[in-house]
Amino acid sequence: MSRFMCADLAALEPYVPGEQPQDKKYIKLNTNESPFPPAEGVKRAVCERADMLNLYSDPVCTVFRRAAAERYGLGVENVSPGNGSDENLLHIFYAFLRDKGVAFPDVTYGFYKVLCGALGIEYKIVPLKADFSVNVADYASINTPVCIANPNAQTGIYLPTEEVEKLVLQNTARLVIIDEAYIDFGGQSCAPLVNKYDNLIVVQTLSKSRSLAGARAGVSFACEALTADIEKVRCSLNPYNINSMTMYAAAAALKDVPYFEKCTREVQLVREYAATTLKNYGFYVLPSLSNFLMAKAEGVSGQKLYEKLKERGILVRHFSDERIKDFIRVSIGTRAQTEQFLRAAIEIVREELHENG
Amino acid sequence: MSRFMCADLAALEPYVPGEQPQDKKYIKLNTNESPFPPAEGVKRAVCERADMLNLYSDPVCTVFRRAAAERYGLGVENVSPGNGSDENLLHIFYAFLRDKGVAFPDVTYGFYKVLCGALGIEYKIVPLKADFSVNVADYASINTPVCIANPNAQTGIYLPTEEVEKLVLQNTARLVIIDEAYIDFGGQSCAPLVNKYDNLIVVQTLSKSRSLAGARAGVSFACEALTADIEKVRCSLNPYNINSMTMYAAAAALKDVPYFEKCTREVQLVREYAATTLKNYGFYVLPSLSNFLMAKAEGVSGQKLYEKLKERGILVRHFSDERIKDFIRVSIGTRAQTEQFLRAAIEIVREELHENG
Repeated sequence: MSRFMCADLAALEPYVPGEQPQDKKYIKLNTNESPFPPAEGVKRAVCERADMLNLYSDPVCTVFRRAAAERYGLGVENVSPGNGSDENLLHIFYAFLRDKGVAFPDVTYGFYKVLCGALGIEYKIVPLKADFSVNVADYASINTPVCIANPNAQTGIYLPTEEVEKLVLQNTARLVIIDEAYIDFGGQSCAPLVNKYDNLIVVQTLSKSRSLAGARAGVSFACEALTADIEKVRCSLNPYNINSMTMYAAAAALKDVPYFEKCTREVQLVREYAATTLKNYGFYVLPSLSNFLMAKAEGVSGQKLYEKLKERGILVRHFSDERIKDFIRVSIGTRAQTEQFLRAAIEIVREELHENG
Repeated sequence: MSRFMCADLAALEPYVPGEQPQDKKYIKLNTNESPFPPAEGVKRAVCERADMLNLYSDPVCTVFRRAAAERYGLGVENVSPGNGSDENLLHIFYAFLRDKGVAFPDVTYGFYKVLCGALGIEYKIVPLKADFSVNVADYASINTPVCIANPNAQTGIYLPTEEVEKLVLQNTARLVIIDEAYIDFGGQSCAPLVNKYDNLIVVQTLSKSRSLAGARAGVSFACEALTADIEKVRCSLNPYNINSMTMYAAAAALKDVPYFEKCTREVQLVREYAATTLKNYGFYVLPSLSNFLMAKAEGVSGQKLYEKLKERGILVRHFSDERIKDFIRVSIGTRAQTEQFLRAAIEIVREELHENG
């Protein structure tokens, strides 16, 4: 740390992203990317913008916000755009949580803790149940805002809309943030509820289900008053936060509904196939409605499985957190990639058990 | 403001960007954009990336950082990338100023005050001299960090490198931030000095001289220790802040030196022609080394001139701040656009003076 850094940042621990090898030689199943290219209209939109990059992007970001709003019958006044949904979370945490703190599960998206560290937000950890699901009743006595990833990051487990509504209604003086990064792989979005509940914010990303991880596009949905607050923060921290290529790419991706449905359906089919196969070979697999699976093999540590897969050219993710250290997290790739992963994982476990037994 | 907003944001005033009409019918000389399209390699780089947007961008951002570093013989460890230089300023203000405050001139880039408001940073205003130049001696007794736009925003006046060095050496326990958004139109960058002075940070944007306003790409240059702090903040607030299209577009733009030189030379030629013409017709024009001119006409208010130009389809910018309210700020467009502006401005002044006199 330099002698000029603000003292409150001394212990700052930045987010550690999954490995992003730039040489492309791995089967990359470690950061929950889509295995499919973006919708056709995206490339056209991006190339069209390339000649006009000398002009600033629209700071109001109407094209993108409108496309996102229309999906749920909402208005532009319900949508704030982010440079990736991480930035939406930054705006929301900055706007609403610094003076109140926040509560979230012990196993969830690691970025929440990083943001809390960076923004000086106190957080309260609420353990998931033994089966790794969220128990809404555990939040009944919590008066600080609550942030839940749904489906939950690192588990893939989905909380049904009725349960989210229970959470929202538990305490209407409490803000509830639902991070729906993985909602499009089998869950039902709560975005249509934001005009019904003025204490609900829903965050989504176009990284996964819209194949736009590299374009950085996220959105938050909320009632007009909350959105106005979020927009005020956005326009104070970085008014032109969405570049024009991303703006039009996002709109194009949101408009191509058939391609979106085709991709997300295929991910679900491959996920169910992978889960069944792993279970048939003795793996323990969490029930996922996301584009990844958390799986563990009896007798082989998560770290070992991660390393052995990497040796075979397959990147998955391993977390050293106590409750999930026995698992690996594998993103759902194409059917061919997933077949390769399954063969390798099954072989590795067989070899390891043979060696140790 | 909603009932959930943090109380310290009650008085938050977001940045007001210059008008960005999306219908393209104006001659747009109001936001200091380049009138030239980006370098040829930019479009190629962007279109190449479009098919791979399903993959995350490189969070380390090496391609862009290296290209920026090489220009000044610096290393990647001296460069932090921003989603526009506004975001670089956010990272720097967040990292270093919250516990110290900052000082900047009365007439300068309006975003500094906005950021201070959003981040709870106290700022001290140091008036420019009567001729609108920065007087380094005025900062001698100031112990808080100092932020100077060079050339200065809203005036275009350049502070020579020797003067910046005086400022840096006035107090080496004090951080100096030099915002060089407009440096490529005749000034000399201080970026090569960042390894000489460990209390100097230089910020640049690719919006103006690289024709990439719509791509959002900025950089900060500083010694390794300061850059490590800035990077820590970047990776805590939004780890994947640069999308892959912008990353490669920026690198391509930085590498095309002949095109960059051609564009910036043309802007300087047209600027000098415009300044001379305006002065010949009785305007008062500040000496600018940027891609804009501040000009005022005796007897016609800045607001009036702005409005009359807009009626004729020419957008310039007017600021209501007391010291510059008599001026308009006009970006240097193509020669043809500038001719149209000059004809219109001269005619308007003639008509107004005739009407009133």
